[in-house]
Amino acid sequence: MSNTTKIPYKIYLEENEMPTSWYNVRADMKNKPAPLLNPATKEPLKAEELTPIFCEELVAQELDNEHARIEIPQEIRDFYRMYRPSPLVRAYCLEEKLQTPAKIYYKFEGNNTSGSHKLNSAIAQAYYAKKQGLKGVTTETGAGQWGTALSMACSYFGLDCKVYMVKVSYEQKPFRREVMRTYGASVTPSPSDTTQVGRAILKEHPGTTGSLGCAISEAVEAATQNEGYRYVLGSVLNLVLLHQSVIGLETKAALDKYGIKPDMIIGCAGGGSNLGGLIAPFMGEKLRGEADYRLIAVEPASCPSFTRGTYAYDFCDTGMICPLAKMYTLGSSFIPAPNHAGGLRYHGMSPVLSQLYDDGLLEARSVRQTDVFEAAETFARIEGILPAPESAHAICAAIDEAKKCKETGEEKTIVFGLTGTGYFDMVAYEKFHDHQMENYIPTDAEIAESLAKLPKME
Amino acid sequence: MSNTTKIPYKIYLEENEMPTSWYNVRADMKNKPAPLLNPATKEPLKAEELTPIFCEELVAQELDNEHARIEIPQEIRDFYRMYRPSPLVRAYCLEEKLQTPAKIYYKFEGNNTSGSHKLNSAIAQAYYAKKQGLKGVTTETGAGQWGTALSMACSYFGLDCKVYMVKVSYEQKPFRREVMRTYGASVTPSPSDTTQVGRAILKEHPGTTGSLGCAISEAVEAATQNEGYRYVLGSVLNLVLLHQSVIGLETKAALDKYGIKPDMIIGCAGGGSNLGGLIAPFMGEKLRGEADYRLIAVEPASCPSFTRGTYAYDFCDTGMICPLAKMYTLGSSFIPAPNHAGGLRYHGMSPVLSQLYDDGLLEARSVRQTDVFEAAETFARIEGILPAPESAHAICAAIDEAKKCKETGEEKTIVFGLTGTGYFDMVAYEKFHDHQMENYIPTDAEIAESLAKLPKME
Repeated sequence: MSNTTKIPYKIYLEENEMPTSWYNVRADMKNKPAPLLNPATKEPLKAEELTPIFCEELVAQELDNEHARIEIPQEIRDFYRMYRPSPLVRAYCLEEKLQTPAKIYYKFEGNNTSGSHKLNSAIAQAYYAKKQGLKGVTTETGAGQWGTALSMACSYFGLDCKVYMVKVSYEQKPFRREVMRTYGASVTPSPSDTTQVGRAILKEHPGTTGSLGCAISEAVEAATQNEGYRYVLGSVLNLVLLHQSVIGLETKAALDKYGIKPDMIIGCAGGGSNLGGLIAPFMGEKLRGEADYRLIAVEPASCPSFTRGTYAYDFCDTGMICPLAKMYTLGSSFIPAPNHAGGLRYHGMSPVLSQLYDDGLLEARSVRQTDVFEAAETFARIEGILPAPESAHAICAAIDEAKKCKETGEEKTIVFGLTGTGYFDMVAYEKFHDHQMENYIPTDAEIAESLAKLPKME
Repeated sequence: MSNTTKIPYKIYLEENEMPTSWYNVRADMKNKPAPLLNPATKEPLKAEELTPIFCEELVAQELDNEHARIEIPQEIRDFYRMYRPSPLVRAYCLEEKLQTPAKIYYKFEGNNTSGSHKLNSAIAQAYYAKKQGLKGVTTETGAGQWGTALSMACSYFGLDCKVYMVKVSYEQKPFRREVMRTYGASVTPSPSDTTQVGRAILKEHPGTTGSLGCAISEAVEAATQNEGYRYVLGSVLNLVLLHQSVIGLETKAALDKYGIKPDMIIGCAGGGSNLGGLIAPFMGEKLRGEADYRLIAVEPASCPSFTRGTYAYDFCDTGMICPLAKMYTLGSSFIPAPNHAGGLRYHGMSPVLSQLYDDGLLEARSVRQTDVFEAAETFARIEGILPAPESAHAICAAIDEAKKCKETGEEKTIVFGLTGTGYFDMVAYEKFHDHQMENYIPTDAEIAESLAKLPKME
């Protein structure tokens, strides 16, 4: 390993090398992402229609297709410094184990208590809520990563945080719930009797264990019915991808520092927040014709919105109360079969990434759950870090690409996003160890059935 | 916060600034720690009596009171680079919250999958086992941090790892068990039918949920009865403190880089591995008369070996099969009341630290469990990191000292060790949130009773 002397195991930026503005890839897109539509009128949503639900500055960011650079407020940069820069790690041990000529790097976002990249946008959204003089924010959480990140962010700014947690997760993941309580959030199992929509669902389905769609509906109602509250969301939206661009900007700065030019950049994709952030500045160079990269989205075979979905306007939530977004989707009525990567079970995909994919600027592939956990365990044993199941999708694809390099002898440089740690996912690992993990893959008929229910646009 | 421009939030060393040798504080001690004794003969143990149980090079390190510097083998340094250097963090947010003129720093050892500093010695012990050509190692684990660290280390070197896990933890902490399995370790609930001692205990106490003492006995038997195995231990021993000196050496290098001279250094103390490592180079300067520091051990009020124990020869294990060590002890028959800092429930204290404490070179204090969790929650909310209950003992004392500075107006520099994260301790946090946590403090009579059973030395 003589090359260890040249490139360190971990590249950390100095504080003065950290990004001071986010990068808005929409500014460089020739084909802009399609606008959000009012579900009643099918007309593009105006800012004033969104501000009763979302914070004003966040609405402005959501609608801004023009400005390439948006300054990161000092207060957010102060918080970023508590856990950022995250390391860009050279996977020397993995390279050696695979006996590949490829050079593998990963950007590790798991070294904070929320355990994932979600904190990058949570702190930004909490900041704008505080700046607007709000009392607090509401949100939903499934597996709990987003809820944890938001709890931490609200605690920092002294905001109240109401989290609606899907009841089955609330009961099965008490540890995640306790982390949120440690940060002072109130965590309510959804459906609950604290909202109209919750009470209606409980009346109709007394024994229900809840769903993300229902939790979103409750969180939105709680935001609009409580004075001084707004609703916040951890993925899919343009504003979230904007905040997450800090991942890609740091990655690029770290690579540039050592004169490294990646050949491909790989990220897992659920709603698109991590992938969109990681690839942002590289996609920018590609859009401006300054450089070329292979940019690869990896999704679970059980919820393959890019690879088997269609590009159309759809509801963002299963409750059909949110705006319509044009995206690659399996249909908002699609219910993905059980998969242990809870963060990748969304029926649709970020409108920004959807447009880029449709324009052929982004590749996508799907991987099977058992292959993902095999890659996760390999990675944990070799590189030491126990990955979240979501992140392991990217690991799986990166290992595949490194193996291809071994066959061809090509010394490609592979960068992937390691979005988080798997400490709260040990039930999934246990199933894998005990050979009780199955691969659910939807049939063409199942996908066709939910796509048939897409909203009619004309 | 104008001082943020001078000292960064996190000080990281460059790879070429990382320690290349461990520091053996015993070399600079005028009064050496008392030798381990053979429990039968009461004579100092010779190397050849220890090598059937421990690896040869580790025995040499255990008995070495002379060499101040012991080189860290390149293979261990390569592994260290995967998760080290750990950051030295300036707690700007905590300082601001406390409105203290004190400057607070913490050395954070939780950014690795084992979640604690234990990995520093685990990888060293696994390396020497591998070098000796062994097949594998055995150990016991209570809460599971040490077992996890050893599993990771053995996985890296391709060694077999047999962990005897106290049965009650095995059943109540399935996630820790799964992390160990992810790294390929075999985890056996103790007492088990795989050893003579285990079978004897099961026969006598059919429903027992096990104890650390019993797990130690099983692990030692498994090491001596299986060809090609040795036993390894994660605390108390001199060799462990030697490996952990990497914490203190990095801390000192980071402080020196910015010309910072600490006034006091604070660490939690169970068996002493973290504290001994953190303070090592500072204690060295103190012993050599080059500098002076306040060095403070913090222990739980429920298991106060320094503050209420006695300095005497005692058994290291409750099963009384291990060597006799001279240490501050509550007596090997002392059973600490329930406390959620599993890593601080040991009846004795490292012989090295015991001698230093007896010589007045080290201070000690005890803190109550509820105060510890209050400090933990405060810290989590302000600094973002969810601490392990063990680590929170040091936080508790550091906050107390910072508050004193507020009263006196003194600008002292406080450094404390944040040994790990609390992701697997959420049951304890839940009890705290639900006001179901109690403070158990042993009576004088209870301590006197167990001290009366100390081995007779003459």
